[in-house]
Amino acid sequence: MALSLYDISVPVFTRGLGQLTYILDKGLAHAQAAGTDPSELMNARLAPDMFTLAGQIQSASDAAKFGVARIAGVNAPSFPDTEATYAELQARVTKTVDYLQTVDRGSIDGFEEREVTMKVRGNELKFTAQRYLLQFSLPNFFFHVTTAYDVLRHNGVPLGKLDYLGRF
Amino acid sequence: MALSLYDISVPVFTRGLGQLTYILDKGLAHAQAAGTDPSELMNARLAPDMFTLAGQIQSASDAAKFGVARIAGVNAPSFPDTEATYAELQARVTKTVDYLQTVDRGSIDGFEEREVTMKVRGNELKFTAQRYLLQFSLPNFFFHVTTAYDVLRHNGVPLGKLDYLGRF
Repeated sequence: MALSLYDISVPVFTRGLGQLTYILDKGLAHAQAAGTDPSELMNARLAPDMFTLAGQIQSASDAAKFGVARIAGVNAPSFPDTEATYAELQARVTKTVDYLQTVDRGSIDGFEEREVTMKVRGNELKFTAQRYLLQFSLPNFFFHVTTAYDVLRHNGVPLGKLDYLGRF
Repeated sequence: MALSLYDISVPVFTRGLGQLTYILDKGLAHAQAAGTDPSELMNARLAPDMFTLAGQIQSASDAAKFGVARIAGVNAPSFPDTEATYAELQARVTKTVDYLQTVDRGSIDGFEEREVTMKVRGNELKFTAQRYLLQFSLPNFFFHVTTAYDVLRHNGVPLGKLDYLGRF
């Protein structure tokens, strides 16, 4: 079996988003057991100038969505960052997984050299699809999933590494 | 250019470890400017039962070292977790990068189906090299690099996402 660009993108993001759902569910269960409002978790952050948990989830969603859309050469759907409740935040993750499933293997595999152009802090950057995925979108995606985990752990949610990695 | 197992492992870990060095350097500079002992940062953590910064660095090093050694079918060198100073922690990252450079592309490319066996929490798990890399070692590596970043950010070190992602 040869490696393919689809194999290192859609299933990786999908698995990570599945674990993010699992982690968010544990956060909600913890808040419910403690009798606290889950919106406190939504608005928690690790530093005053870092994103809140909500921002981490929205960013993980965007990283996966753009990560796949750009290497497939299609326009990503718009997911405005309007989630106001914990349930909406959970739905954002599900919606992202649903979108990934609509992207066809045939639009990704073999397109390692497709040009990807994006703006970062006002600078236009050009990548090949492969370099964009490996140097930008996968590290960026795992950054936001991990930081969501770290925010929840810092706020007392009982999580372990396997909740992030998943079952094998 | 076809995708290869080497391309999605050694250069990805090497880049991540390079950014980890950069982030650790910024942590040291921050401690020095503030006149604080950098060992306070080394021992900082986000939750009482999470690893300290030192543990995150050691774990990122191990994730990269084993991630590459196992898919190459070679024994990884032993890096005992004995780092007692911030400088030794920085050296651990450098030593890991140096090790990755010794692993030959020819021992990795084409071995997507090589069997990787490892123990997690007492359970023996079997993977193909490709699945091990994509489902275990890359997500695990980014987890520890990101959590190191999050520990430093939580402790006031001025970092931005591009310090983690690197320059393009």
